[in-house]
Amino acid sequence: MATRLAERSCQPCERGTPPLPPDQVEALLGQLQGWRVEAGKRLVKRFRFRNFADAVAFVNTIAPIAEAEGHHPDLAVGWGRVDVSLTTHAIGGLSENDFVLAAKIDRAFGGT
Amino acid sequence: MATRLAERSCQPCERGTPPLPPDQVEALLGQLQGWRVEAGKRLVKRFRFRNFADAVAFVNTIAPIAEAEGHHPDLAVGWGRVDVSLTTHAIGGLSENDFVLAAKIDRAFGGT
Repeated sequence: MATRLAERSCQPCERGTPPLPPDQVEALLGQLQGWRVEAGKRLVKRFRFRNFADAVAFVNTIAPIAEAEGHHPDLAVGWGRVDVSLTTHAIGGLSENDFVLAAKIDRAFGGT
Repeated sequence: MATRLAERSCQPCERGTPPLPPDQVEALLGQLQGWRVEAGKRLVKRFRFRNFADAVAFVNTIAPIAEAEGHHPDLAVGWGRVDVSLTTHAIGGLSENDFVLAAKIDRAFGGT
């Protein structure tokens, strides 16, 4: 059985590597909950919180995960919410790294 | 002489209060640097940083200021940048509070 996404690590990806094809995107998306693909090249999810401070706390939870993976999300923070958006700029689309980071962020959110 | 924006505090604003008229918006905008008004009702500015961690650190600088004022920005965080967006939802546009918070955020960014 394949290693769960959250257990994998982001791999260096080289420019020129093609983005994941739609069938692989769909397969990986099926291993996540609550994420959707935008414009074929961004993986996005909204996380909700009780207030602004809790939303900022989640940014601080995500930051060291992103640093450890060397892969950084875009985060839209507002009162009671953080919208996480992942893409792999170097290849102009989605790579497995985006799904790995999504799974790790989910795991951190769930505290499991 | 009027108190500098950064020295003022956000005031409770009631629903039904009209947003600031364009001439007052222009006058207050003239007291800030690098901010612009979007769609007539949002005050926005991009702050740039050396990396992701510094951008997140700035979110943590802003958070207690927002809590103290009871007025919360939207923050778009990415590698090396934080886009700050301010509006007063209760009145559907800009209030002086937005300019006060902008000035305090500028002051915090400058460390002065």
